Amino acid sequence: MQEPTPKSVDWYGGVDGYLAMLDQTKLPNEHIVIECQDVETVYEGIKMLRVRGAPAIGIAAAMGLVLGARDYARDTTELLARVAHVADYLASSRPTAVNLFWALDRMRQKSNAVSDHSPKKILEALLDEARRIQSEDAAMCRGIGKTGSSLIKPGMGVMTICNAGGLATAEYGTATAPMYTAHELGRKFKVYACETRPLLQGARLTSFELSQAGIDATVICDSMAGTMMKQGKIGIVITGADRIAANGDVANKIGTYSLAVLAKAHNIPFYVAAPSSTFDPATPYGDAIPIEERDPDEIRSGFGQQTVPAGVSCYNPAFDVTEADLIAGLITEKGLITPVNRPSIDNTLQLSAGCLDTCDG
Amino acid sequence: MQEPTPKSVDWYGGVDGYLAMLDQTKLPNEHIVIECQDVETVYEGIKMLRVRGAPAIGIAAAMGLVLGARDYARDTTELLARVAHVADYLASSRPTAVNLFWALDRMRQKSNAVSDHSPKKILEALLDEARRIQSEDAAMCRGIGKTGSSLIKPGMGVMTICNAGGLATAEYGTATAPMYTAHELGRKFKVYACETRPLLQGARLTSFELSQAGIDATVICDSMAGTMMKQGKIGIVITGADRIAANGDVANKIGTYSLAVLAKAHNIPFYVAAPSSTFDPATPYGDAIPIEERDPDEIRSGFGQQTVPAGVSCYNPAFDVTEADLIAGLITEKGLITPVNRPSIDNTLQLSAGCLDTCDG
Repeated sequence: MQEPTPKSVDWYGGVDGYLAMLDQTKLPNEHIVIECQDVETVYEGIKMLRVRGAPAIGIAAAMGLVLGARDYARDTTELLARVAHVADYLASSRPTAVNLFWALDRMRQKSNAVSDHSPKKILEALLDEARRIQSEDAAMCRGIGKTGSSLIKPGMGVMTICNAGGLATAEYGTATAPMYTAHELGRKFKVYACETRPLLQGARLTSFELSQAGIDATVICDSMAGTMMKQGKIGIVITGADRIAANGDVANKIGTYSLAVLAKAHNIPFYVAAPSSTFDPATPYGDAIPIEERDPDEIRSGFGQQTVPAGVSCYNPAFDVTEADLIAGLITEKGLITPVNRPSIDNTLQLSAGCLDTCDG
Repeated sequence: MQEPTPKSVDWYGGVDGYLAMLDQTKLPNEHIVIECQDVETVYEGIKMLRVRGAPAIGIAAAMGLVLGARDYARDTTELLARVAHVADYLASSRPTAVNLFWALDRMRQKSNAVSDHSPKKILEALLDEARRIQSEDAAMCRGIGKTGSSLIKPGMGVMTICNAGGLATAEYGTATAPMYTAHELGRKFKVYACETRPLLQGARLTSFELSQAGIDATVICDSMAGTMMKQGKIGIVITGADRIAANGDVANKIGTYSLAVLAKAHNIPFYVAAPSSTFDPATPYGDAIPIEERDPDEIRSGFGQQTVPAGVSCYNPAFDVTEADLIAGLITEKGLITPVNRPSIDNTLQLSAGCLDTCDG
């Protein structure tokens, strides 16, 4: 009997309850759930990457706000001032996380909307809002699963990279959602998780959560993808996305582009799974997305030992851009977008196409 | 001022001298040279991979034979018996290393050929033979360098994988030989060494020896190769080979095939550098080469930390096969073979083509 897929963050009890945070920095060796009873513990968990993945961070912050506010509920004025203060505090935990600010803004707006209620009612409304952020994310992921599950055929080998999984979201994940749904439907298939250097999210996290759910997962080194495709072991590649440009170009974890080129060379369909919130109509095409370069020490000493000589440079781009013409389809909660181009994206998502007149793409 | 490229193995002094072995298991963090004064130390060094790479192992064993024999030189009979005994002993250090057996056989034949000489002369002849094995290997590598150096243009980005470098040979290496020669000619270029999961020979060894020689080397994760090619940073890919089939298909470190496919997709020439001894006319084509699967723990816990959960499988093929049609040329000490096919290989190497009548390829 497999254990259920662990949730990255969850709330137990009412307003006097607690936030349970799976410590992802300890995976896969230790399975530690932190019972956060105060906002400082949540702040530390976000800052230290114990919770990671944009949606999961947003949910943790929204719930953390309840923890930080609940001891200041003697009167409404005090409570609302405290909500604003705690929101600022949590927003400083990871200064570039868009979902963090978005979730905290939504909580602040909720507190203002119910400001004529009693402190007790305000706190309950805030907890409800945090849980709604969580359930909306879960529903979005399940929608992606529903859209994509039929792409995974019985006996198929499914390749993925990084962790666009349940651990990065409320549950279910994005790239993993079609896998979870296909698994729930009783389909048998095999997932090959690229280990995802330098930070090994595929090895540490994706293989962990899939195997916990009873899905057959095998870890390979990123360099093995081409040979596995040539061997006929891979029927589909599904990755997540950090950002999708208006023309369908996808920015995602470094190594995604290589997988897409290799998949094309082996006539294997390459799909990207992402919620509609990942599409950015203001970015006309992938080349407009700056490539973030991260600390070379992630490559140099990522395994606990120094593996690159001192004085030798490492180049460490965090993500790459995969052009739309390499992508067979975009799997969203609003449906499958194929072929991948601006009209079919706009048609499925009904995004405002504010960039259409001024940008080529 | 840069230090010279360290030699994997070398002999200092006459028959009463010693073998200096660079301990490659300690690289890149410590630069330890073991002074081997007895054969047991050489045996241990080969067994524990302190010296690695087929040519370097052969040289170490040949020199180790002198260490093991020199204290048994009171008469010729005793010495020749000891040579045979020590050769058997050293041959058991790594049972699958072809160059090891080849070098020890050559030493045994030499001892028989000079068996009517004095013990002192026999020992000197053996040391000469060991040094000849070393210098022949060095000359072969320099020949590869001479053939390939003109492919590296000023300002070019050169990508490689694994360590087909000076550390695996007497000096200079195979894939690295064109780089060393171009560097000696004063050409400036930049090498991107793929780190080479799972054992990180590119990160630990190739970047070390190139930077010691004053060549500009940068380590990247294997997953970054595609993006770097798309960015226009790579002008040529040069790898080594474990075995080259009669039709030009190349077996080499896992990840080589992906690089070749990615290079083709970006119109970047992909070359393989190898001595003529790596060509195997008895293997008609690459599919006939069995893919060795290695211990999953190399992926799971290779560098001090467990990175894959217990109970999750890892697939760990040690090498892959790159088809001849992906290869722009084979860089050998006998010349550049291009296009890569059986007639041009046979023409350049003048191999016996015993397989031509019975095999397709």
